[in-house]
Amino acid sequence: MPYSSPISDFRFLLDHVVDFDQVAATDRFSDATPDMCVAILTEAAKLSDEVLAPLQRPGDEHPAVLENGIVRTSPGFAEGFKAIAEGGWIGISASPENGGMGLPLTLATTVNDMMAGACLSLQLNPLMCQGQIEALEHHASDALKEIYLPKLISGEWTGTMNLTEPQAGSDVGALRSKAEPNNDGSYAVSGQKIYISWGDNDFAENVCHLVLARLPDAVDGVKGISLFMVPKFIPDEDGNLGERNSLRVVSLEHKMGLHGSPTAVMEYSNAKGWLVGEPHAGLAAMFTMMNNARLGVATQGIGVAEAAYQHALTYATDRKQGKAKGTGTIAEHADVRRMLASMKADVFAARAISLANAVAIDMATATGDDAWDARAALLTPISKAFGTDIGVEVAATGIQTHGGMGFIEETGAAQYARDVRVTTIYEGTNGIQAMDLVARKMMDNGDAAFALLDEIEAAAEAGKATLPDLAEPVWLAAETLRETTEWLVSQDLNDRFAGAVPYLRAFARVLGGHYHLAAALSDDGARKRLATFYIKRTLPEHIGLLAHVREGADDLMAVTIDDLAS
Amino acid sequence: MPYSSPISDFRFLLDHVVDFDQVAATDRFSDATPDMCVAILTEAAKLSDEVLAPLQRPGDEHPAVLENGIVRTSPGFAEGFKAIAEGGWIGISASPENGGMGLPLTLATTVNDMMAGACLSLQLNPLMCQGQIEALEHHASDALKEIYLPKLISGEWTGTMNLTEPQAGSDVGALRSKAEPNNDGSYAVSGQKIYISWGDNDFAENVCHLVLARLPDAVDGVKGISLFMVPKFIPDEDGNLGERNSLRVVSLEHKMGLHGSPTAVMEYSNAKGWLVGEPHAGLAAMFTMMNNARLGVATQGIGVAEAAYQHALTYATDRKQGKAKGTGTIAEHADVRRMLASMKADVFAARAISLANAVAIDMATATGDDAWDARAALLTPISKAFGTDIGVEVAATGIQTHGGMGFIEETGAAQYARDVRVTTIYEGTNGIQAMDLVARKMMDNGDAAFALLDEIEAAAEAGKATLPDLAEPVWLAAETLRETTEWLVSQDLNDRFAGAVPYLRAFARVLGGHYHLAAALSDDGARKRLATFYIKRTLPEHIGLLAHVREGADDLMAVTIDDLAS
Repeated sequence: MPYSSPISDFRFLLDHVVDFDQVAATDRFSDATPDMCVAILTEAAKLSDEVLAPLQRPGDEHPAVLENGIVRTSPGFAEGFKAIAEGGWIGISASPENGGMGLPLTLATTVNDMMAGACLSLQLNPLMCQGQIEALEHHASDALKEIYLPKLISGEWTGTMNLTEPQAGSDVGALRSKAEPNNDGSYAVSGQKIYISWGDNDFAENVCHLVLARLPDAVDGVKGISLFMVPKFIPDEDGNLGERNSLRVVSLEHKMGLHGSPTAVMEYSNAKGWLVGEPHAGLAAMFTMMNNARLGVATQGIGVAEAAYQHALTYATDRKQGKAKGTGTIAEHADVRRMLASMKADVFAARAISLANAVAIDMATATGDDAWDARAALLTPISKAFGTDIGVEVAATGIQTHGGMGFIEETGAAQYARDVRVTTIYEGTNGIQAMDLVARKMMDNGDAAFALLDEIEAAAEAGKATLPDLAEPVWLAAETLRETTEWLVSQDLNDRFAGAVPYLRAFARVLGGHYHLAAALSDDGARKRLATFYIKRTLPEHIGLLAHVREGADDLMAVTIDDLAS
Repeated sequence: MPYSSPISDFRFLLDHVVDFDQVAATDRFSDATPDMCVAILTEAAKLSDEVLAPLQRPGDEHPAVLENGIVRTSPGFAEGFKAIAEGGWIGISASPENGGMGLPLTLATTVNDMMAGACLSLQLNPLMCQGQIEALEHHASDALKEIYLPKLISGEWTGTMNLTEPQAGSDVGALRSKAEPNNDGSYAVSGQKIYISWGDNDFAENVCHLVLARLPDAVDGVKGISLFMVPKFIPDEDGNLGERNSLRVVSLEHKMGLHGSPTAVMEYSNAKGWLVGEPHAGLAAMFTMMNNARLGVATQGIGVAEAAYQHALTYATDRKQGKAKGTGTIAEHADVRRMLASMKADVFAARAISLANAVAIDMATATGDDAWDARAALLTPISKAFGTDIGVEVAATGIQTHGGMGFIEETGAAQYARDVRVTTIYEGTNGIQAMDLVARKMMDNGDAAFALLDEIEAAAEAGKATLPDLAEPVWLAAETLRETTEWLVSQDLNDRFAGAVPYLRAFARVLGGHYHLAAALSDDGARKRLATFYIKRTLPEHIGLLAHVREGADDLMAVTIDDLAS
């Protein structure tokens, strides 16, 4: 299953669409010179195309298994992980003082996109490590940082996040795991956690679990949750590994896809752990990590969409059938061309949104400017939900492009659809993302949204001189979104929640129009033609979505549970 | 995985939405009294809920396998098939002179819907048999009919359709299988066929293959194709089985879903076959069968959507999480309620369309009226593509409703999504359906479409007095569809094809609005509330779709293959 990292798309997006120059112009990220970016993209592409992509099918066909308590990973995954670690990719955005490269998250996002497109199930491992590194950088004591960060960044150790319990999924506050103080400053952590991605493996020396649990004096709900580092092997203060901790993999899940990634049920029985951050402030620490992890998951969706698109394009431009003109392949048929163009246009839109999100995070980091923080916070749920929905949709269109071959596993098209399916669920379901957007992210009465809409409308106004046919519909769509947003922020939460998912989708569609317009204004060739497809054919989707939003909750909640069961 | 056949939905649709009374009022179908309908629905529900539904998961977990040339079917499938056969369900619409019940296809459609919802992979077998029975009834010689029809209808023998070859998928005219006359009136059939659903099994005495092949004097393309009956065991004229024919299962496909249904690569090596219908007229015979088989596949999509909906509803009304009011379950959350309502509303819309399609077929059969034929022909591609797209979408929403559990195979939600995926592909991909709609089905300059739109608008006009809030948007949507249809029929084929898929979808959305309005006008309670959800929130989707349609082909085909690969 060949995969070719879309370097030219990344370069175009960074240079002409999401204004990466402003990141590179900051002191904080002055290392991110154009030459450095080219080097990063080139090297990550080489790793992804040559080392990781060949692991994609074996990971599906030979799932990770649990044998006598030991997780055996898929063939080649140990070598693949080693190559990722040796390239320095785990710590690309981590602090240089612990061995990281200290580069912008925007570049890390391009690298994660390529690695995810090449082999999603393996890439999930370094993504989890990156989340843990970030959490420790922000919240851990210096002592913990010194022990864990160098090993995580080098890839000698790997990291996991332990949030979910059987009775506590989206409602994290319902978790019951406990942590009792020991007399040496550590804690005895007990409880069962589920859905632990890469809960164990057979290639890292240690596996470091960040576990949410309750201290004895904790209040109920989210304000009584603390965060603990619970390693598989207990290190001394120099990082030398000692005794096995009292934790184990109970079982691995049998999943629809992502077979190469062992998803564990973990059990902690008075396992030794160390507090990360303040007591009862675990959720805040988790949120730091989760916001960026959400961008990471968005990138997974986009990476898989890219791979599924390439796979379908290869098939469609190779398969000769019917009375096709030109190349004689099915890609000459209008309906197949429509599928391919829609896939490519949607990948571009989703990728632009996620990179703009990453730029906002980098600018917030570099400048400390609250406006950038607000921009990043607004874009995060949109990136996550839209990027992963596009992952699912493009993978489905990829199957459809293959016809009957799409349903046959050996073709490989089905694996993309099965693998990417989890991305709309984990790290907060896409419904949760949409609720986050219309509630938490609009506690500012929509200020961040309106600021972004101002920019979109100003860009469209400016574009009208050159490309009125494209700029005008983008301006109109933004204005409709503005009016709906004005209505939305005046409603109570339930009215917002009722239309949260279509609202997020419409917002993403408008953003996609904005970035496609920027592309068309910079490139009078292929990118303008693709933008024309998107703006004229796909962007109008927002009209029906926003009509849905404006209906509010009443008629929806009027459909009772009895109605649904009747 | 409990499944409960939605009998009350069928009764409501037949009585109040698709005017089944007119079918029962014909001489041809005078047996289809209300009592008979109730008996059929009740018995088929019992079979589906109690006998077939328990086979759904075992079929997935223990796929059919090929062992030393013999297909071993999934556990319980032999008994399940026997129960279907003994209930008379294979021949529900077949002619009574050969043992069929002679009942309307509309009733057969409700039965197929229930059986598909209960166990899709097994139900595909009788569906293939029904297609073969119909082809033989219309095209076979009396001698062939006498031998094959009673055995197929009784379920002693099963039937398959052999169209596809590796180089000839959607382009059937490219097929190469050959048939040479023997000196006894039979033919020697040779060739390889792929994607043969239920190509063999270990529970029927004989497997009867309808095979498309070329006679020696055949012209190229679709006008040189003939249809042959090629049985696994060669019967004498009394139906006693004789020698094994020269055909074999080469392999079974490893598929994304539908594991219980053995999908075979078949090889025919001078296998003995008999011509069905006229020489070189095989495609016409195949089309007779395929049109109704397309409705059968639509019904598969809808049946699985129903089952996936029930499964998600059970989970959502059982799962307690977060600060939900009322029942305390996640079904109280607005976004979950939105998912559930959209699933139920879409199943209703798709089912109404397919039953209206079946009514049109029955009325054409009973009256010979061309207008009914045209109505049936128009609705068939819409039923097939929309019914199966809704199958895929509802199954996906079902996974999403389950959160993390949706990705775990043991939950069962994923199987619906994997199984139903093939329905958008086989029996003509949904892209092919859409092209059929805008081309072949509009060779009448749109007359059949406009006649249907007249009815929709008249019903909406009449509804304005009672339910103006619902009738007005349906009328407006129909009028927008009419204007787009007027534009469409004035365009050349490529312009039509470019927007064929969004056009079909918009047509289905408007039809869904029409049938939901009819439901609301008959039932002031739950059905009106569901119709309100659909008409106000889902129907507006047509606006963006029709905008896409009206863009034609130019800007689409301007996106070149080089652009796509750049």
